[in-house]
Amino acid sequence: MIFRKALCHRPVAAAATLTMFAGLPVGLHAQESVEERLSALEQQLAEVEPHARGEQGFSFNTYARSGLLLNSDGKSAPGGPYLTPAGSVGGAVGRLGNEPDTYLEAILNYKTVAENGTQSHYRLMIADSTTSSNDWTAGDGALNVRQAYVEFSNLASFTGIFEDSSIWAGKRFDRDNFDIHWLDSDFVFLAGTGAGIYDVAFSDSVTSNFSLYGRSFLDFPSDPNTTDGSSDTDNLVLTANNYFGNMQWMINGMSAADNDERIVGGVMEAADTGVNTMLAYHGGNFFGISDGNFKVALLHGQGLGAEVKNIGADGNLHEDAVSTRLGIYGTTYLSDTWRIAPMILAETSKDRYVEGDEYQWLTFNTRLANELSANFEMQYEASWQVMDLQTQGYEGRGDVDGDYARFTVAPTFKPQVGGFWNRPEIRVFASYSTWDDDLNGFDGGDALGQEDFGGSQWTFGTQMEIWF
Amino acid sequence: MIFRKALCHRPVAAAATLTMFAGLPVGLHAQESVEERLSALEQQLAEVEPHARGEQGFSFNTYARSGLLLNSDGKSAPGGPYLTPAGSVGGAVGRLGNEPDTYLEAILNYKTVAENGTQSHYRLMIADSTTSSNDWTAGDGALNVRQAYVEFSNLASFTGIFEDSSIWAGKRFDRDNFDIHWLDSDFVFLAGTGAGIYDVAFSDSVTSNFSLYGRSFLDFPSDPNTTDGSSDTDNLVLTANNYFGNMQWMINGMSAADNDERIVGGVMEAADTGVNTMLAYHGGNFFGISDGNFKVALLHGQGLGAEVKNIGADGNLHEDAVSTRLGIYGTTYLSDTWRIAPMILAETSKDRYVEGDEYQWLTFNTRLANELSANFEMQYEASWQVMDLQTQGYEGRGDVDGDYARFTVAPTFKPQVGGFWNRPEIRVFASYSTWDDDLNGFDGGDALGQEDFGGSQWTFGTQMEIWF
Amino acid sequence: MIFRKALCHRPVAAAATLTMFAGLPVGLHAQESVEERLSALEQQLAEVEPHARGEQGFSFNTYARSGLLLNSDGKSAPGGPYLTPAGSVGGAVGRLGNEPDTYLEAILNYKTVAENGTQSHYRLMIADSTTSSNDWTAGDGALNVRQAYVEFSNLASFTGIFEDSSIWAGKRFDRDNFDIHWLDSDFVFLAGTGAGIYDVAFSDSVTSNFSLYGRSFLDFPSDPNTTDGSSDTDNLVLTANNYFGNMQWMINGMSAADNDERIVGGVMEAADTGVNTMLAYHGGNFFGISDGNFKVALLHGQGLGAEVKNIGADGNLHEDAVSTRLGIYGTTYLSDTWRIAPMILAETSKDRYVEGDEYQWLTFNTRLANELSANFEMQYEASWQVMDLQTQGYEGRGDVDGDYARFTVAPTFKPQVGGFWNRPEIRVFASYSTWDDDLNGFDGGDALGQEDFGGSQWTFGTQMEIWF
Repeated sequence: MIFRKALCHRPVAAAATLTMFAGLPVGLHAQESVEERLSALEQQLAEVEPHARGEQGFSFNTYARSGLLLNSDGKSAPGGPYLTPAGSVGGAVGRLGNEPDTYLEAILNYKTVAENGTQSHYRLMIADSTTSSNDWTAGDGALNVRQAYVEFSNLASFTGIFEDSSIWAGKRFDRDNFDIHWLDSDFVFLAGTGAGIYDVAFSDSVTSNFSLYGRSFLDFPSDPNTTDGSSDTDNLVLTANNYFGNMQWMINGMSAADNDERIVGGVMEAADTGVNTMLAYHGGNFFGISDGNFKVALLHGQGLGAEVKNIGADGNLHEDAVSTRLGIYGTTYLSDTWRIAPMILAETSKDRYVEGDEYQWLTFNTRLANELSANFEMQYEASWQVMDLQTQGYEGRGDVDGDYARFTVAPTFKPQVGGFWNRPEIRVFASYSTWDDDLNGFDGGDALGQEDFGGSQWTFGTQMEIWF
Repeated sequence: MIFRKALCHRPVAAAATLTMFAGLPVGLHAQESVEERLSALEQQLAEVEPHARGEQGFSFNTYARSGLLLNSDGKSAPGGPYLTPAGSVGGAVGRLGNEPDTYLEAILNYKTVAENGTQSHYRLMIADSTTSSNDWTAGDGALNVRQAYVEFSNLASFTGIFEDSSIWAGKRFDRDNFDIHWLDSDFVFLAGTGAGIYDVAFSDSVTSNFSLYGRSFLDFPSDPNTTDGSSDTDNLVLTANNYFGNMQWMINGMSAADNDERIVGGVMEAADTGVNTMLAYHGGNFFGISDGNFKVALLHGQGLGAEVKNIGADGNLHEDAVSTRLGIYGTTYLSDTWRIAPMILAETSKDRYVEGDEYQWLTFNTRLANELSANFEMQYEASWQVMDLQTQGYEGRGDVDGDYARFTVAPTFKPQVGGFWNRPEIRVFASYSTWDDDLNGFDGGDALGQEDFGGSQWTFGTQMEIWF
Repeated sequence: MIFRKALCHRPVAAAATLTMFAGLPVGLHAQESVEERLSALEQQLAEVEPHARGEQGFSFNTYARSGLLLNSDGKSAPGGPYLTPAGSVGGAVGRLGNEPDTYLEAILNYKTVAENGTQSHYRLMIADSTTSSNDWTAGDGALNVRQAYVEFSNLASFTGIFEDSSIWAGKRFDRDNFDIHWLDSDFVFLAGTGAGIYDVAFSDSVTSNFSLYGRSFLDFPSDPNTTDGSSDTDNLVLTANNYFGNMQWMINGMSAADNDERIVGGVMEAADTGVNTMLAYHGGNFFGISDGNFKVALLHGQGLGAEVKNIGADGNLHEDAVSTRLGIYGTTYLSDTWRIAPMILAETSKDRYVEGDEYQWLTFNTRLANELSANFEMQYEASWQVMDLQTQGYEGRGDVDGDYARFTVAPTFKPQVGGFWNRPEIRVFASYSTWDDDLNGFDGGDALGQEDFGGSQWTFGTQMEIWF
């Protein structure tokens, strides 16, 4: 309930000087030399510039998308990268022309530099998600705070291996998360409330990051020992990220004190500990073939760590659960006007929720773009997924074995073409998807489980996407 | 779930130069001419100024009102421009001294200019509405996202009739909505999720705008074909706005694929298509009589288009529904210190929800202001509404025929008097309203339907209103 | 539903000039004298600077904290300054290492200066509170609007005793609230929706503030006379704050028209009026002994005024309720590197909710800090509370008599050490608390009432805290 007024960095002397200058008729400046007035202006501008550029004070960042996804009757169509049965265990398909929602992140930053040079960055992220196309969504919107943390860097008193380290505490997305944009899937997504240190430099090419995160499983009955039953910290994750040049080695250990009391699939064998690890390479070109970039990552986890992407988020995992995932993508130009971004994401996991279950899926996706003018390009995306899911009846789900394919054409406007990361974009699109009927038997509650949702469909729509 | 770090427009060279300048003692500038230093300052300031003025980077806009509306016992009084029976079909009365809520819109903008000159504007609007006067309203507040869209203008590659066009996509209020401020009523209010193009210039004096909007009806059972049942896109609206000098001709066509399955008043005759149109004139003076402005609009709609203001928002309309609405207002100065703003809004509609129903109402309202000092004016508002509503029992409502009158005196403080659009304002007010007892029989759930809410009442209160 | 585009303060002439300058090659400036260009720059910078510094246009303020509070099993521990039985009537204990939540206030300001010099300040505060450590809290977050008001100052037409007055309206925290930071407790916390005037200057050393606030009691059945049942204004508070040099005398009168119909503890004797008053001294040194500051306040209230801190917020108070509270704190440096902040807060109240009940509690708390480097200090907090609560069975609560003690050690990082008010801070902490078993019998629903929550516990955690 407290709020304390800011004692803001006000360069009082400079301001006073300026006011004096600005208020006087030109002739009265005579007693001041041009040199003095130039120096005063340079100093004032040096104070103003970092604020205007967002390097000090307030700045604003965003990720947002919003659009319509319609079927051939002009009605809302089900969609989203996670719409197939494999999506329930992280197997996304291509997102272009496949998103029915308005999702946005409004990020408010405030940066300061102390007199001793230590920098401080406060970040607040408010996010919303809704599939309503209405302009008033108080009933079905989801505005909430996803991040609220401070990070200190350039600490005046840090020396040795900590000289360039930064420290943080609060609620955040880990700094080292990275994603496959075309699936709306992170390689790893670690988030929660905690504290940590980045950039401990053991040598010029070896740096490490260490953090502790707490988070809850979304649907676990709460600990009776707390006053607010609905939102305990169930799971603690200790994480280390180690960089050796372009190589990244991440290791996470986690512990959920009471999770062995949890009943999953009628049996009490939920994991209460877990580990997972990732070996990744961040390439500065397109697999050594051409300009561009590529990333490849191999992930493996056990117990609570068998959810290898959303670290520590799944509390239903079996104590014997084992998962292995591989992700690869790259981007490059094929010619002056054609770009390509192929990718593969695949996972195999066993004893995931119930002893004896087995989940295997692989997604292959390629986005192509053809830049046609300063503001326009044609985008194409082809996505193919094959899956073999043996659920042992977990959550009433059936066993399915089959594949899903999707192809999208999206005429796209943007302020300036020139690469896969240029945003904003305004798109219209048409998308055709087709899949084995067998997949419809996985879950009566999911998109493919709906009646009259046959083995193929056309969808159409429009969307904007922006980040800055 | 993704967020990509901004690669911000950082004028690195300029910044480096500046830092060098600012860090050096005055004497060391000797080798640089005054000319060079002046030019550097001018360039740096040219980069900073658009940010400070909100023309590039972040800027903030707002509409907000917050106040107390009390009856003579010092208790909350019912209120709001839509409190009469006619309010249920859009018949608002004067708002001065008649608003019990805190309503606000926080608008976060981010503007960029690409190297090729194309401009981009991202707008996020978060809004809240509550009648609670408490400072913690997590339980009865309504924070939600009303707009999230991007608009491109000055597109480098657009030529011919599109040379000055702008394009947009996302969730938004249409750019061409305009309102009668004194009733808190738009002439037209079109909003939803979609995409469009503005300012296609067929000639110097003829321009057109075209957009497609999707939105849902608030209370229609959802399409079983979707994963999220509560928030489908039920209704698609295709809109065109054509400007011929001061004339505006709007035409909207809409289609709600499954709305003919909807049951209204026990019968299945809900419209599944609709059209409406508006002819408006935006006057640059007070009806040709004196300085000021005026607006006049005639609206007509059928089927789903029979809700002529909130385009596409009402899914209960009968397939034979027909509505015609007329709106007029003007503002002018009567003398150096007195201003006046008279207005009329009236509508007739038939077969609106049930065959044979008929709704007719007319509101006459005048706001007067007497500027008494740099910061103070007396405001007066008189509002009179007559209505004849034959509901055919729709939603259990009775037939009513009668009138309602309201008179408000509001001593008002503002930073600078000088017109109807100057805000912020801080007001105190006293208001007297009186109405035919007959109106109390319309709906037991509305304000006038309450017990002990007789045929007249005094209300008092205080309020702030701001926009920028 | 309306939003009007801002007609922003655009210094068009200056901008045009600037654009001309910036766009031309250096040589073309020849016809303009250095003097003219210097003057133009000075004027432009004078317009830009107040925006960059947040003195005009948009600015951003924050209070936020976020962290983990864990018990020795690595599970969420109950906590918070108000966790003891005395907390139910305002008796907080020390907050260091005792906060399980993410709480934040995002404050968006917009300031303008009219041509006549009148200043306007719009403030919007959005706040959230959750004990979830997850990064998605749409289900258990609480985002809401706590403040939305405008305040005018330096009014051009105000003279005499009002010359330096400012006026406000909307929803706000009163400007004159002040707090004991270490308990997360205000001395007085007055908030709601209303209007008022600050700084009426009767003489150089005597100024007064007058405001009217409306608010609702959180759990009172709503007035059937209103359209929105859940959020009436039940209680009106008239407040005056009078300053005589360092002395502050506050007096509040309140009236809740229908509160005598309220049933508390089965009986209908709830107060429907109340008064309270506070005499406070704001000291500019540490009790006259050394540099620093101190504050002391004596509060007394009756009826609805018997909740002496949260003015007007408690509607269950008995008509005969009487409370008296004393608060004292001070801060000073003991040496170059040690600081201390001792404090006492104590209250006695009678016939509070039920005739014959009696609540007495006293908290003694001291925070110590030892500054060890530019970025690091050790913080210590000792808190002791004694209470004797005779509830007469109100809300099923038992009578308790006992004490609670807490001791915390918190290694703390900050951008720059140097006082109790420097933020942000990043802390890790260990805390030991112990209490009389008797206190566990107060309320089965509170923290100490939980099973296996014995007479002492160790807790650990990490937290960030920031304000600016």
